[in-house]
Amino acid sequence: MKLTILGCYSATPRTNTNPTSQVLEINNHVFLIDCGEGTQVELRRNKVKFSRIKHIFISHLHGDHYFGLVGLISTFRLLTRETDLHIYGPKGLKEVITLQMKLADSWTNYKLIFHELTSKESELIYEDDKVEVHTIPLDHRIYTNGFLFKEKEGERKLDMNAVLNADIDVSYYRKLKQGFDVVNEKGKLIKNETVTKPPINPKSYAFCSDTMYNERIIPIIEHVSLLYHESTFLEKHISLAAPTKHSTAKQAATIAKLANVGKLVLGHYSTRYDDLKAFKTEAESIFNDVELAKDGKTIEIN
Amino acid sequence: MKLTILGCYSATPRTNTNPTSQVLEINNHVFLIDCGEGTQVELRRNKVKFSRIKHIFISHLHGDHYFGLVGLISTFRLLTRETDLHIYGPKGLKEVITLQMKLADSWTNYKLIFHELTSKESELIYEDDKVEVHTIPLDHRIYTNGFLFKEKEGERKLDMNAVLNADIDVSYYRKLKQGFDVVNEKGKLIKNETVTKPPINPKSYAFCSDTMYNERIIPIIEHVSLLYHESTFLEKHISLAAPTKHSTAKQAATIAKLANVGKLVLGHYSTRYDDLKAFKTEAESIFNDVELAKDGKTIEIN
Repeated sequence: MKLTILGCYSATPRTNTNPTSQVLEINNHVFLIDCGEGTQVELRRNKVKFSRIKHIFISHLHGDHYFGLVGLISTFRLLTRETDLHIYGPKGLKEVITLQMKLADSWTNYKLIFHELTSKESELIYEDDKVEVHTIPLDHRIYTNGFLFKEKEGERKLDMNAVLNADIDVSYYRKLKQGFDVVNEKGKLIKNETVTKPPINPKSYAFCSDTMYNERIIPIIEHVSLLYHESTFLEKHISLAAPTKHSTAKQAATIAKLANVGKLVLGHYSTRYDDLKAFKTEAESIFNDVELAKDGKTIEIN
Repeated sequence: MKLTILGCYSATPRTNTNPTSQVLEINNHVFLIDCGEGTQVELRRNKVKFSRIKHIFISHLHGDHYFGLVGLISTFRLLTRETDLHIYGPKGLKEVITLQMKLADSWTNYKLIFHELTSKESELIYEDDKVEVHTIPLDHRIYTNGFLFKEKEGERKLDMNAVLNADIDVSYYRKLKQGFDVVNEKGKLIKNETVTKPPINPKSYAFCSDTMYNERIIPIIEHVSLLYHESTFLEKHISLAAPTKHSTAKQAATIAKLANVGKLVLGHYSTRYDDLKAFKTEAESIFNDVELAKDGKTIEIN
């Protein structure tokens, strides 16, 4: 599971900073999260194969989180993409993208499937054998969701020495992996936990941008391996955080601590700050495993 | 009069090439022409002051010519712009920009004035004391205009030796500059052309992108100082030019020759070409003053 930060600044793209966009690689998926202006160029710069992107998640309809989407959709068309593209985002996204395709008289030759979000409760929006994606309702100036990406718990692992000693027929191995007790060749009941080991701990990633300090997200993101939480401001500008419904680095760290997450990544910095070290220092006064997002940075999620 | 090429490639932005956008400086105006994705970053890179842009001209609603506009409008807002912004472009542009502002609940604090174009005949769309802007109806897959920017003819210049010798009272100088004959202190009629010189030749710039070969534009662009004409393809790919309604370098040069323009600039290259030299060579076989557009290049118009 690997996260690549394409852009992690708020507000407006500049020559050396990009608005929000991230790529999450999880169980052979390449999920694109938010898509500010210039994302398609950052995807190229970071050598992400366009054809592998099949699901795009848009947190909200402020420009720094989605103005690059229509261009990316259009580039996919020019590259003669045929694979379906699923887009998850607030209601309104379909209308604005469709209007632009209509005005250009340029319709995609691949299937564009919008999953428009309106719920204010966390919901399961994607699921397959190995992965789930849930929304994280955030508290921002307009309707906004974060996203929780979770590996599903895998099968239990056979403890082969114990299995062989217990005289279990090979046809029962599947049931053992699924956690059932079985009867061995001598008719004796074998308790599952005596011959198997727990599955590998599933990893998870929570993306929370943009939001004001909001403890209601804690039950949803509790114990995630990695939390990205916006920190637009430092504590000294907390008076700006409330009216704009953004967070400070200290508030992000407080959420990380209360939710017992594995690691915290900060981002969505206001472009007023030239030096970002203070974000890390401020957050580390509350929570000890803090990393700063940086355009082009890759973070392994363990 | 100075033209800065921000982007001159067709189709899709890449790490090293930008879609169409240009800045024309003419009589203290800074006109922005087309606005592909990433234009606001290229404006910064080329040190164009955002506050000086008061008029934006959009040729058509294919993404590589306007997907950067909504982001630029939004950045102007974040920079607390107060000056009016005039946008000239095809009908539909207002709807798509307004929809995005509505979805973001982010309205500009400055006045956004749309001048939507629908006419298929050339029309005067901007005029002041010194400058005129006319549309150039082009032939492309969707409704498209080029733009003709013209300095107005200035006043005649006084030939001061001749004026003094002719005993003309200073109160008549204004009339002389305006081209009138005057009566001198001795009551003698002085013919204007004996004491003045013609005004400096007004300069003009025609922007033609995107279009198939179209001789109907010739009367509009005749004798312009500088013509930018798209050349998406080389002649060897002419079979692609017709169905996509684009031009080859040779066709662009033929238009330049038939319209007797001062100089031709080529651009809107398909990204299939790594080396652009062949565009110049091909065009020069028809017309002798040819320059290749290049992102970041500045061209003085004389």
